[in-house]
Amino acid sequence: MSTIVQKYGGSSVETIEKMRLIAERIIKEIQKGNKVVVVVSAMGKTTNQLINIAKEASKNPSKRELDMLMSTGEQISISLLSMILNELGYPSISLTGFQAGIKTEGTHTKNKILDIDIDKVNKHLEEGKIVVVAGFQGLNESGDITTLGRGGSDTTAVALAAKLGCPCEIYTDVDGIYSVDPRVCKNAKKLDVINYEEMKEMAHLGAKVMETRSVEIGHRYGVPIYVASSLEDTVGTYIKEYDEKVEQRSITGLSISDNVLMVTLNQVPYSPANIAHVFTKLASAEVLVDMISQTSPMEGYVNISFTTSTDDLYTVDQVLNELKEKFPCIELQKASNISKVSVVGMGMRTQSGIAAKIFELFAENEIEFKQVTTSEISISYTINTQYKQRAIDAITQTFNL
Amino acid sequence: MSTIVQKYGGSSVETIEKMRLIAERIIKEIQKGNKVVVVVSAMGKTTNQLINIAKEASKNPSKRELDMLMSTGEQISISLLSMILNELGYPSISLTGFQAGIKTEGTHTKNKILDIDIDKVNKHLEEGKIVVVAGFQGLNESGDITTLGRGGSDTTAVALAAKLGCPCEIYTDVDGIYSVDPRVCKNAKKLDVINYEEMKEMAHLGAKVMETRSVEIGHRYGVPIYVASSLEDTVGTYIKEYDEKVEQRSITGLSISDNVLMVTLNQVPYSPANIAHVFTKLASAEVLVDMISQTSPMEGYVNISFTTSTDDLYTVDQVLNELKEKFPCIELQKASNISKVSVVGMGMRTQSGIAAKIFELFAENEIEFKQVTTSEISISYTINTQYKQRAIDAITQTFNL
Repeated sequence: MSTIVQKYGGSSVETIEKMRLIAERIIKEIQKGNKVVVVVSAMGKTTNQLINIAKEASKNPSKRELDMLMSTGEQISISLLSMILNELGYPSISLTGFQAGIKTEGTHTKNKILDIDIDKVNKHLEEGKIVVVAGFQGLNESGDITTLGRGGSDTTAVALAAKLGCPCEIYTDVDGIYSVDPRVCKNAKKLDVINYEEMKEMAHLGAKVMETRSVEIGHRYGVPIYVASSLEDTVGTYIKEYDEKVEQRSITGLSISDNVLMVTLNQVPYSPANIAHVFTKLASAEVLVDMISQTSPMEGYVNISFTTSTDDLYTVDQVLNELKEKFPCIELQKASNISKVSVVGMGMRTQSGIAAKIFELFAENEIEFKQVTTSEISISYTINTQYKQRAIDAITQTFNL
Repeated sequence: MSTIVQKYGGSSVETIEKMRLIAERIIKEIQKGNKVVVVVSAMGKTTNQLINIAKEASKNPSKRELDMLMSTGEQISISLLSMILNELGYPSISLTGFQAGIKTEGTHTKNKILDIDIDKVNKHLEEGKIVVVAGFQGLNESGDITTLGRGGSDTTAVALAAKLGCPCEIYTDVDGIYSVDPRVCKNAKKLDVINYEEMKEMAHLGAKVMETRSVEIGHRYGVPIYVASSLEDTVGTYIKEYDEKVEQRSITGLSISDNVLMVTLNQVPYSPANIAHVFTKLASAEVLVDMISQTSPMEGYVNISFTTSTDDLYTVDQVLNELKEKFPCIELQKASNISKVSVVGMGMRTQSGIAAKIFELFAENEIEFKQVTTSEISISYTINTQYKQRAIDAITQTFNL
C-alpha cells in the first residue's frame, strides 16, 4: 500500500461529467490499495466568471481581495469532486489550502509555498479517506488567503508529494512531455523520461506543460513526477533523475517562443554604469528581459541587443524614449517578427560541438540568426519567425527529436 | 467615535451596482467617525448556481461538502465589496468566517455560533479599516467550514455586535417590522420599536423578517438591533428592551402562516403511551408539529388535532397509515386550506381579556376557528383560509395595528 498525489488541471474538472471521469481514475488507485491525495484546480469557467466580476468591481482590484475571490474557485471544485466520490461510495474529504496546512509567503497573487503542516492530510489518509486538496492556494503568516500564481496547482501537488515522500502524477491536457511542441512539429516524439534539469530548462524556455517552480520542488526533494493525459489512457512522461550516461541523447528537446520583441541599441557610450542604467530602467518598468547580448566595445561605444515579450512593447517604448533623451547618440532598432528557438539537453554537458552542428544546419538551410546565448544545458537562437518552421524541421530531423 | 455592525442581505449585494450603493452607506458611517463592521450574505444568483451544481454532482450531497461549497458564496461577496470600498479610497479588509474567529458547533448546514475570537476584527478596526465579514459561516472544532442555516448572516451580525458590545443594523428587503405583513394588510403600521420577546414570538410565528435565533442572541447580550431598508432612506424598527408600562399596546403584531395542514385523530384509545406513540412517530419522520390540541378523554377515547406544514403532507400520510394499522378504530381527518393567525404582545402579560376580545370579534364576523393555543405573550388560532382576510381586517382595526 503506497501513497500517491494526483493533480487534475482545470479542463479535466470543467464539468461535473468530466469530474465523474476523473473520479473513476481516482477510484482505480484506491482499488489497487493505494492512498490517494487529489489536487484540483478551479473549473475553467469559474475562473473566468470571477475575473470578470472582479473587473466590474474595481479597475485595479486589491491583490489581497483578488486572492480571497479567486481562491473560491478551487474550493468549489474540491467540494464537488468530494461529493461525487462520496456518492460513489468512496469516503472523501475536501480541504482548502489552509485546511491542508499549506503555509505561504510573498506577495499576493504570486505567493510561494513556505511549508506544509501535513498532519491533517495524513490523519484523513489513515482514516481511509480520499483527500481532495485545493490547488493554487494557501494561508500566509497574517492569516490571509493567498494564491500561488501561474502553475500554482502543480506546485501544490508536487509540494504535497515532497512532504508525503511519495510520487506525484500530473494529469493535464497534453499526454506527456514532447521533444518539440507537437503543434509546431507533427512528428514530435513523446519522451519516456526527462531529467529535472532538462525539464526546468524546457519549462523556462517556453514549453507550457509545467512551470519551472514545481519541477524545481520535485528536483530538490526527489519527487518522481509523472505527466500524462487526464482523458486518455496513454503512457506519459516521467520527470526524474536518471543516469545520463545510459541515455546517449545529446539534445532532449527543442522549445520555441513566439512573440519575441528584439531591441538593439547601437552606439551606446560604453561604461558599466551606462549599461546598468539601461537595464535598471527596464527592470523598474517591470519589463522582463530574456536574452541579452553585447558586442565588445569599439571606439568607446557598444551595441546591445536584448529580447523581451511583444506584450511589453508599449512600456519598452517609454523606456527607450527616456534613454534616447539621456543618450541622443544611441541608434534604436526594434524587431518584432522574432522567434526564439532553444535546444535543451543534459548531453551538452559532455558532448561538445552541438552549437557548431546547429550553426552548420542554419547555414545549410539559409536561416539567419540574430542572437545566440548559451547555458550549461541549452543554446538559444533568435531568428526571424519566417525561418521558424525550417529551423524546427532541420533540428528535429538531425537530432531525431 | 463608536463601533457599529451593519448587515446587508442577499438582494442588496445581488449586483456590483447594488454593492456600490451599500458601499456609499457604509462610507457615510465612516465619515461620521464611526468604525464599521459589515456582514454580507452571498449574491442571490451565486447561491442558486451553487445549489444547482451540487445537485448535478450528487443526489444527496455530503452535508460537510455542501457547507464547503456554499461558503464560497459569501467569500465572493465580501471580496468584491472590499475591492469596491478600497477603490473608493476607504481601506477595507474582508474576512471569511474562520478568519473572523467565528467558532461553531452542531450539524453541518445547521451550525450554531459557539464563540467568536474577536481579536482579529478589533485589530483591523483599530487600524482604521472597514472590516467586511462573511455571514452565515464559521469553523467547527475539527477545522471544517460550517454554515449556520437559514437567517445565518443575521446571526453572524448580531453575534459580532454582542462580542463588540455595539449596536447592530440589519438592512434588508423590507423597511422595518410591521404589526402585520403589509402584503396581507395594506394599512399595516410600521413599528418604531418592538421588544425582543415580542419579536422572537413574531419570528417564530411566521414573520419572515428575522429568524428567532438572531433575536435570541440580541436579547441575551442586550444588542440593540435596527431593521431597515437597504435601498430606501426611511426610518426602520428598533428591536430592543423597552419599558412595557410606557407602551399601552396590548397587541404589538399579528402574524399569519399559510400552508397549514391540520390533522385530527378522533377516537384514539386514551393512554399517555398511545399519545406519545403518535408524536414520536411524527418526530422520527422529521415532521415538525406546530400546534397541538387535545380534548378531555371521554369514555376511554380522546380526540387530538395538530398542525404541520402542507409540505409534509406525503410523510404525514405515511405515518397516519401506520397508525391506522395499529389503531384501526381511529378516525382520520385532514384539512389543508388552513391558515394560522397569531396575535403577539407583551401587553398580554398584564392585560387580560385579549383572548375573549378576539373570540368576540370572530363571533361578530362569523369566522369559525378550529384550534386555539396560547403562550405567555401570544394567542394562535387556526381558521379556514377563506376567513383569513376577514380575521386580519377585524383584528387590525380593533387593535389599531
